[in-house]
Amino acid sequence: MSSLAPSNQTIRVAVIGVGLVGAEFVDQLLALATPNPFRIVSLSSSKNALLGLDGLSFTEGWRSDLWKSGKKPGSFADLAKELSKLVVPNQKVVLVDNTANEAVAASYPLFLKAGINVITPNKKAFSGDLRLYDEILSASAASGARFLNESTVGAGLPIISTLKDLVMTGDTVHKIEGVFSGTMSYIFNEFSPAQGTGPAFSSVVRIAREKGYTEPHPADDLNGADVGRKLTILSRYIPALRTALPSGYKSVSTRSLVPGELENTESGDEFIEKLPAFDEQFDKMRKEASAEDKVLRFVGVVDVKNGVIKADLEKYPNTHPFATSLGGSDNIIMFHTERYGARPLIVQGAGAGAAVTAMGVMSDLLKLV
Amino acid sequence: MSSLAPSNQTIRVAVIGVGLVGAEFVDQLLALATPNPFRIVSLSSSKNALLGLDGLSFTEGWRSDLWKSGKKPGSFADLAKELSKLVVPNQKVVLVDNTANEAVAASYPLFLKAGINVITPNKKAFSGDLRLYDEILSASAASGARFLNESTVGAGLPIISTLKDLVMTGDTVHKIEGVFSGTMSYIFNEFSPAQGTGPAFSSVVRIAREKGYTEPHPADDLNGADVGRKLTILSRYIPALRTALPSGYKSVSTRSLVPGELENTESGDEFIEKLPAFDEQFDKMRKEASAEDKVLRFVGVVDVKNGVIKADLEKYPNTHPFATSLGGSDNIIMFHTERYGARPLIVQGAGAGAAVTAMGVMSDLLKLV
Ligand SMILES: NC(=O)c1ccc[n+]([C@@H]2O[C@H](COP(=O)([O-])OP(=O)(O)OC[C@H]3O[C@@H](n4cnc5c(N)ncnc54)[C@H](OP(=O)(O)O)[C@@H]3O)[C@@H](O)[C@H]2O)c1
Ligand SMILES: NC(=O)c1ccc[n+]([C@@H]2O[C@H](COP(=O)([O-])OP(=O)(O)OC[C@H]3O[C@@H](n4cnc5c(N)ncnc54)[C@H](OP(=O)(O)O)[C@@H]3O)[C@@H](O)[C@H]2O)c1
Repeated sequence: MSSLAPSNQTIRVAVIGVGLVGAEFVDQLLALATPNPFRIVSLSSSKNALLGLDGLSFTEGWRSDLWKSGKKPGSFADLAKELSKLVVPNQKVVLVDNTANEAVAASYPLFLKAGINVITPNKKAFSGDLRLYDEILSASAASGARFLNESTVGAGLPIISTLKDLVMTGDTVHKIEGVFSGTMSYIFNEFSPAQGTGPAFSSVVRIAREKGYTEPHPADDLNGADVGRKLTILSRYIPALRTALPSGYKSVSTRSLVPGELENTESGDEFIEKLPAFDEQFDKMRKEASAEDKVLRFVGVVDVKNGVIKADLEKYPNTHPFATSLGGSDNIIMFHTERYGARPLIVQGAGAGAAVTAMGVMSDLLKLV
Repeated sequence: MSSLAPSNQTIRVAVIGVGLVGAEFVDQLLALATPNPFRIVSLSSSKNALLGLDGLSFTEGWRSDLWKSGKKPGSFADLAKELSKLVVPNQKVVLVDNTANEAVAASYPLFLKAGINVITPNKKAFSGDLRLYDEILSASAASGARFLNESTVGAGLPIISTLKDLVMTGDTVHKIEGVFSGTMSYIFNEFSPAQGTGPAFSSVVRIAREKGYTEPHPADDLNGADVGRKLTILSRYIPALRTALPSGYKSVSTRSLVPGELENTESGDEFIEKLPAFDEQFDKMRKEASAEDKVLRFVGVVDVKNGVIKADLEKYPNTHPFATSLGGSDNIIMFHTERYGARPLIVQGAGAGAAVTAMGVMSDLLKLV
């Protein structure tokens, strides 16, 4: 038996996607204290793949080995077939999807049915059609394989685990309210600070983009869809709302901040160029808020009692935590529940960034040990 | 096979202590959705006990059945012996200690060695001598039985799980800083609000006691030991500080707010009666803080970089979250880490109360499923 021979305490991990989060995740996994309970058996980008069911060992480091592999990734069905060979009693196998890919997401039921656990920061599968979500649930229930997605909401912050704990232990969630997008947080912390005045909206967006806080095309953040996706993921953990959003984030009542005239702007550069024409509009909203001693924040609300799930630009008093304690691109999420009574449970901190997101993925993985 | 015959999917639970937290815990456990993965095999207060290794079934409800049992609880060693009969492969057994008892705490190594998991809101075992803590660690490592104590810090708030995730995934904790005592939180939120003035210290303490927020003898809160215990529990999860507190909370640098002259006051009533003589002293501190636009907060600090672990009365700017966003008897805990960079991860909310504490215990229990 070679020293690489897998013991049945070892958890086999297949990693798809080694971009910002994926690369950091692989680094974190390989840096775990020995004896490392995980062994990577498959590693793929969209262009290259490495497969070794006994566990990959890297000669020049995983980056360079993957780059030089000369092997194209096969289909997800083929990968599921290969991995399912490892699924035997008392042996755990995990797919870690670090892409934002719809096709990988659509194949989760396949992996789960085969007894392969799925862990991912990819929101697609959980925030789209209820049908896919239901397939995921039943595939997981049938085989006992789990899907864990902590980092789809709030990155490394304990948001989904907290919500699950509240629900599973029998608390009743009345309302979840928060700033769920790091980009929107940064934009409105700058644009609408507690003291009321600030720079022009377009200049805040331009700087956010220059700093890499927005997607290449800022409309992909300003349309609110990312917040709608996160609200969908959370709502589905609340029994009363499990089926409330048949089309996922598309069923969430979402206010887009993309001016109607700019909706079909093809490039991010063009968008940034044309945005100043709408500054007055945003300034007017800020003035109105300021006159009431309020700030503007783009928030997500899951109001269980009233059955309202919305992503919207709202006004909050200058003294509200969304005004006083937010900074940078922080997320903040408030859970109003029966047990927590008048004062909510609050979690706050960076809700994006490769290191903290990969940490969320790693902590899900450690739950399988 | 009767319908009560335990399947090996069922987790056997022995409950010691059915006071405020314990009673709520038993209620929460029995109210779980079916199929309930747990079965209570032992239930005891300090006066009565029920034991049934096949699973207790209650005729008039657990309260009344326990009350009428007519059986005194045996020794913890006897209980461990009984429970160890249930420890067979693929079968989980858990001791849930809902007391504040030192003797139960001292017997955790016995239970753990026998393969019985331990879950508890009782701080004693983890915040005392390092020797007991080390015995607990090695007993757990030897048998594979786990000990989980989420609700010893912040009650139902995800504090210990968050710290463990940070450490296990390879983040470096620089500093933890927070308001860890619900009682101290209430007292200083009232005594030293952001606007600077407030009622006399003794009157705040008196009202807190009348509302049931303090121990019967308020000195048991004001001596800071509870905060010292929580800091000990957290510090031991940080590799660099694991052995930093050989005598546990007694090794924490703790500022007691009990005036020297009142240290030996026997009764809570007498303490409350004599406290007004020291109002001026507290008022002076508040005035000094106020002159710097600061508030007073009794905080716990684990400064990993500088090796300082202290429970102390500190001044914070009026604009600091400890001044602006705290209310009621909230806890707030900030984790400053390498990955979270300049802006800490923050968790806030009620850090005491039977319902939320029992929830923390339940969520630990659900981790075993
Ligand atoms: N970054 C954050 O702060 C953050 C926070 C929370 C959640 N997330 C989520 O985490 C996921 C990853 O984000 P990211 O920032 O790391 O994005 P990214 O840097 O764009 O990385 C995505 C990676 O997925 C790979 N990929 C795409 N399709 C693939 C396929 N069919 N097979 C194998 N690999 C494929 C891409 O590979 P190629 O490079 O070869 O095309 C790319 O490297 C996304 O779902 C995102 O929403 C990110
Ligand atoms: N309450 C909170 O908000 C809170 C928050 C965080 C943590 N905690 C911790 O949770 C634990 C329980 O707190 P609590 O508020 O529920 O206290 P409690 O109401 O005083 O209940 C403690 C119970 O333990 C029982 N007990 C003591 N010694 C025992 C023994 N040898 N065998 C069996 N039962 C024994 C007592 O039984 P008898 O009644 O028969 O004497 C009592 O019912 C404590 O460790 C506390 O520090 C509490």
